[in-house]
Amino acid sequence: VDRYVVIMAGGSGTRFWPKSRRRHPKQFLEIGGTDSLIAQTADRVASIVGWDKLVVVTGRDHAEHALSELPGLMEHNLLVEPVGRNTAPCIGWANSVIRHRSPDARVAVLPADHFIGDVAGFRAYLDAAFSAVSDRVLLFGMVPDRPETGYGYIERGDRIGESKTKPLHTVRRFVEKPDQKTAEGYLDSGKFLWNSGMFVFPAATMHEELALHMPTLSQKLAELEAHPKEIDRIYREMPSISIDYAIMEKSERIAVIPATFAWSDVGSWDAATEVYVPDDLDNVVLGQAVLHQVQRSFVDSTAGRMVAVIGMEDVIVVDTPDAVLVVKKGRSQEVKAIVQALEKSGRDDLL
Amino acid sequence: VDRYVVIMAGGSGTRFWPKSRRRHPKQFLEIGGTDSLIAQTADRVASIVGWDKLVVVTGRDHAEHALSELPGLMEHNLLVEPVGRNTAPCIGWANSVIRHRSPDARVAVLPADHFIGDVAGFRAYLDAAFSAVSDRVLLFGMVPDRPETGYGYIERGDRIGESKTKPLHTVRRFVEKPDQKTAEGYLDSGKFLWNSGMFVFPAATMHEELALHMPTLSQKLAELEAHPKEIDRIYREMPSISIDYAIMEKSERIAVIPATFAWSDVGSWDAATEVYVPDDLDNVVLGQAVLHQVQRSFVDSTAGRMVAVIGMEDVIVVDTPDAVLVVKKGRSQEVKAIVQALEKSGRDDLL
Repeated sequence: VDRYVVIMAGGSGTRFWPKSRRRHPKQFLEIGGTDSLIAQTADRVASIVGWDKLVVVTGRDHAEHALSELPGLMEHNLLVEPVGRNTAPCIGWANSVIRHRSPDARVAVLPADHFIGDVAGFRAYLDAAFSAVSDRVLLFGMVPDRPETGYGYIERGDRIGESKTKPLHTVRRFVEKPDQKTAEGYLDSGKFLWNSGMFVFPAATMHEELALHMPTLSQKLAELEAHPKEIDRIYREMPSISIDYAIMEKSERIAVIPATFAWSDVGSWDAATEVYVPDDLDNVVLGQAVLHQVQRSFVDSTAGRMVAVIGMEDVIVVDTPDAVLVVKKGRSQEVKAIVQALEKSGRDDLL
Repeated sequence: VDRYVVIMAGGSGTRFWPKSRRRHPKQFLEIGGTDSLIAQTADRVASIVGWDKLVVVTGRDHAEHALSELPGLMEHNLLVEPVGRNTAPCIGWANSVIRHRSPDARVAVLPADHFIGDVAGFRAYLDAAFSAVSDRVLLFGMVPDRPETGYGYIERGDRIGESKTKPLHTVRRFVEKPDQKTAEGYLDSGKFLWNSGMFVFPAATMHEELALHMPTLSQKLAELEAHPKEIDRIYREMPSISIDYAIMEKSERIAVIPATFAWSDVGSWDAATEVYVPDDLDNVVLGQAVLHQVQRSFVDSTAGRMVAVIGMEDVIVVDTPDAVLVVKKGRSQEVKAIVQALEKSGRDDLL
């Protein structure tokens, strides 16, 4: 059966301000490598499924950018949403397109803006998932190595079978980001996995599950298939809902494959600092910088200017052509406060 | 008698890197105001002595810059040293030029790169010093308000007279920068004053004292007066020595005027942060910046870019077109380590 990959590149966040901007969201940043996250994501799978089976969904603002980042992407495999409607319509549309081309296809959905440190490990799990999945939506559940409070968790249930190498489990429940103590309990239990947002399913299964749990969306997807030129109107009429709420938390046909390759959703500058190998003083320096008596810090001066840091610990410095960020490690979530302040003061040129 | 002011603008330090550079030393920085320190220094005295009696001594690299900063400066009052030889030759030369014009002149020597927060107070003391000085070198000794370890001190001796309003004292001794405990003792004693590096003397007195304590230098100054065109050779033959070692610490004709106006030699970024009035959170922001949960910090983003700081305390951030500095408050002396590292790696473009 055909194997397809759908890369969801709808992100428009500003959590990586000042490097990420409205027109330049996180998936276009070079994090953890010399290519953008979206290019890294595509390169991880293109050699496996082939560019003809690699579909990218993105918004109008980012379509051109996505094409330039992905020279191998075929134009008919670029699905451009007229408006963002969260992940369920995005995945539903891609699934509908793929099912039309290849009714028996199996589909992997991957966010464009995650980091994977162990490509071989990832590919092995992807292959196992493609092979094993028959009539379920199979989630990648990352085996936690720390009591992380920044991720949602999946409690796995009974073992339900396996690919040649990897066991599969039922899903007992999904849980939101826990507090520190709860996260420690999850880690100790050995039964909780990070919800990676990556999953594999037969196109037919996703089609059936959407029909069952999201009849309105299913109807709109059918309408779009019949009248593709009316996408602007039809897409706007779709409910804005995440695939997690729409399907994962309702379906009886969910499974999870516990996975152990190095992975991060890179949700903040703090998370970004952790995908690099630090030096002896636990510093990470991208670009040109001079650090004097500095520890456990991160400097991104790839914009070409010199950054000098003296006598600091646990600081993140990010330099760009028109803005500099200096933030204490552990507090990079608060970048949103800066973005809000800039919005409030009408500094759209910096957003 | 004529009153002259000599502004010493020979500084070439890089303690204010990245804003100060070899070609743009501290006296040309806008610290504590919208004008450069040298312009502020000249403006404080030009209205008192007149531009015709305001002499500036600087090096060849900075002569043009000094003229552009000081539109009122008369070209024959700009003395350009072919090579830096510390303060004694600089003052000796200026004194010789002034004495030639006006043998009875009294001369005030002021560094170009100090900050004075109370201009009226300064002018009152300057006037008192000009009036009172007759056959001595009269130093401004700043009455300390804290146990500062960054300044040299003067221990005052007996009272020897007064101007109409200000008492004068003999000098018992000069002491180098003390440690914290010693500085606290100095403060408690009430007898120790900060050596400001500003002083007033009759031109004839300085001439006599140089002849007495620095015969070689005196001879060279006489030679320069006779053969001004041979300045390149003659200046190079002068001993490189500070006025403190050459005269102050040897002369029997030194006096001190305890002074109380707000003054700083602005010896570092830390000192610079203190010449501004902070906001409610003890932050000082120059230029455009967004501070979120930041206290006791200093941001200079006058280069025009946006600086955002999150969750920091006691940090100094200085943005310039080609370099950014992030330094913990209290450690800005270590900027020299950055400068050395840049020298070592051949980054002359940043020095």
